[in-house]
Amino acid sequence: MEHKDYMQLALTMAAATKGQTSPNPAVGAVVVKNGEIAGMGAHLKAGEGHAEVLAITAAGEKADGADIYVTLEPCSHYGRTPPCSQLIIKSGIKRVFIATTDPNPLVAGKGIEQLRQAGVEVHIGEGREEALELNKHFFHYMKYQTPYVTLKTAVTLDGKTAVASGDSKWITSEESRLDVHYDRHRHDAILVGVNTIIRDNPHLTTRLPQGGKNPIRIILDNTLRTPLESNVVRDKESKTIIMTSDSITEEDKVPYLQEGCEVITLPDKRIDLQSVLKELGKNSIQSVYVEGGSSVHGSFLEQKAFQELIIYMAPKLIGGWDAHTSFGGSGVSAIKEGLEMNIVSVKTIGPDIKITAHPKKHSNMKEG
Amino acid sequence: MEHKDYMQLALTMAAATKGQTSPNPAVGAVVVKNGEIAGMGAHLKAGEGHAEVLAITAAGEKADGADIYVTLEPCSHYGRTPPCSQLIIKSGIKRVFIATTDPNPLVAGKGIEQLRQAGVEVHIGEGREEALELNKHFFHYMKYQTPYVTLKTAVTLDGKTAVASGDSKWITSEESRLDVHYDRHRHDAILVGVNTIIRDNPHLTTRLPQGGKNPIRIILDNTLRTPLESNVVRDKESKTIIMTSDSITEEDKVPYLQEGCEVITLPDKRIDLQSVLKELGKNSIQSVYVEGGSSVHGSFLEQKAFQELIIYMAPKLIGGWDAHTSFGGSGVSAIKEGLEMNIVSVKTIGPDIKITAHPKKHSNMKEG
Repeated sequence: MEHKDYMQLALTMAAATKGQTSPNPAVGAVVVKNGEIAGMGAHLKAGEGHAEVLAITAAGEKADGADIYVTLEPCSHYGRTPPCSQLIIKSGIKRVFIATTDPNPLVAGKGIEQLRQAGVEVHIGEGREEALELNKHFFHYMKYQTPYVTLKTAVTLDGKTAVASGDSKWITSEESRLDVHYDRHRHDAILVGVNTIIRDNPHLTTRLPQGGKNPIRIILDNTLRTPLESNVVRDKESKTIIMTSDSITEEDKVPYLQEGCEVITLPDKRIDLQSVLKELGKNSIQSVYVEGGSSVHGSFLEQKAFQELIIYMAPKLIGGWDAHTSFGGSGVSAIKEGLEMNIVSVKTIGPDIKITAHPKKHSNMKEG
Repeated sequence: MEHKDYMQLALTMAAATKGQTSPNPAVGAVVVKNGEIAGMGAHLKAGEGHAEVLAITAAGEKADGADIYVTLEPCSHYGRTPPCSQLIIKSGIKRVFIATTDPNPLVAGKGIEQLRQAGVEVHIGEGREEALELNKHFFHYMKYQTPYVTLKTAVTLDGKTAVASGDSKWITSEESRLDVHYDRHRHDAILVGVNTIIRDNPHLTTRLPQGGKNPIRIILDNTLRTPLESNVVRDKESKTIIMTSDSITEEDKVPYLQEGCEVITLPDKRIDLQSVLKELGKNSIQSVYVEGGSSVHGSFLEQKAFQELIIYMAPKLIGGWDAHTSFGGSGVSAIKEGLEMNIVSVKTIGPDIKITAHPKKHSNMKEG
């Protein structure tokens, strides 16, 4: 096995934990001595051991003089666990291969510095692209203190999300809907507008054959119209946060609070997405999966407040001038003012097509 | 080289002539003797030599005892040229490999029968799929006497064809627009609604770096609103056929006829697509490339009167409830009533995605 194979193994272990480590990143580590794997591990849950600790512990005395492959720069600060950089030094490891440095300002380069000062050889960059993709939510959050926003939509071949009357069941195949549940599992929170709650009364939970982590449910609800008998209020499957405007009184909130919902009043007459994202960031939510209707998606587009778009496109044509589309709002006034995107992947899922794209200029919170 | 390689060569030659042979199919032929190619050829233009004639003529005396690979069953009737089946027999060819039989009822199986009766070995089916795809326009026309209809649309990632005000320049990239010109070249006719003529004043010609065949231009125009100064009337680059309703008088037509346009009056109060397709069929038009707006596409969808859909999707988001979409009309009233499609190919063209799909139940002219 070569360097890239060991790093790939570490990345594969890390990828498998995606969704369960938040607010920590997914990290994998492999200790190699004399061409044999001496230990390996991945961080499994916040508060539990880091990947390096698990791998080095498994290696025991074999760590002395060994190499370690780790998908993210080892931490250098005392957090819930002692710094991994010190453990590596103490264990006698000679060479450290790191896929990418840590964007966390508490760590950023310091772990590498400590290692080098202790005479450990450090190589950076093998598997970098994959490592960045793996923890894109975490990296984005560390940089901006707001969640990475993924917009998801399901459309027909003619770009419709529902017929004029609102019927939208089902546009996409079971295979695509299963894929959506994987993405719910991988995100900290799921966000919809109150109209989706009123119209579809969804649970917004993760329903995978083998279970999965339910995301926190965020409802944008200007005037507190979320029905008290709706599933997101009643089912207690996950936390539900209703974000509302400052036109709402403390008294209005009481019945929701009694049901265990959180109600966050934003300092806006009408909910502003920048306020929403800042508030979610304060709540340590690193990633939001937006399953909004055209109104919510239209707002995210107008404010350029998203990092990723996933489109599931089903092989159906429904036609209709009054059918619904994925992005509403007022729209741009000329094609050339449209938001330029980069398509990063196109694949088939069952009979459907899944398209993933990013805004060309990586869009984030507006500064200040 | 194996059987499939020789047939592939014949198919490659035939594919290169696609668009220039109408109303004849594109056909290629390769004569092989003792493992060497003795002759090859493809039919180039209606009225000129068939592929078999060209290949056998090139082979000369070497045809005696040789094999021939031909992408379509050799003709057996006296048309503009003597039957190829007789030429093959006379030339002494021992074995004939045919990709697919001919759907033309004047030929269908008869060429093969003649060959077998004369003691020639006949093998059918090598390269069949590709041969059927290559001449899908011809085969469809032979079966239904109406043209094969391809709907083409260009949309943003959010399924829009224009902003609310109508601006649509340009949604897709230069690469995609070039690809459209190849498809114009490969179709007998191009069809749009009169609104497209009024709004965009297009030429609807084939503009490829090395030229190309201009399709006949078909304008659907209920009330003869096509401007006399429009490019399709004035430029004389190709024939223009205006299809109108029976509310139009002979006098109304005169200025268009004076400009060299053809004006076909359909026996309908409002233009009916079934009448249009029958009329085009009578005019030997085997394939129509529909670059309609949402109104025209909506009609083809409602009547299920098309065989193929090509979508160019550009990596842009424009949003807007009032933006235009690719298929208008009244639309279906529930998702489950939508037209089921099969996606047959998804590829990238420059920065765009090109999706090709067929209706699941191959839709054709309604019977009777």
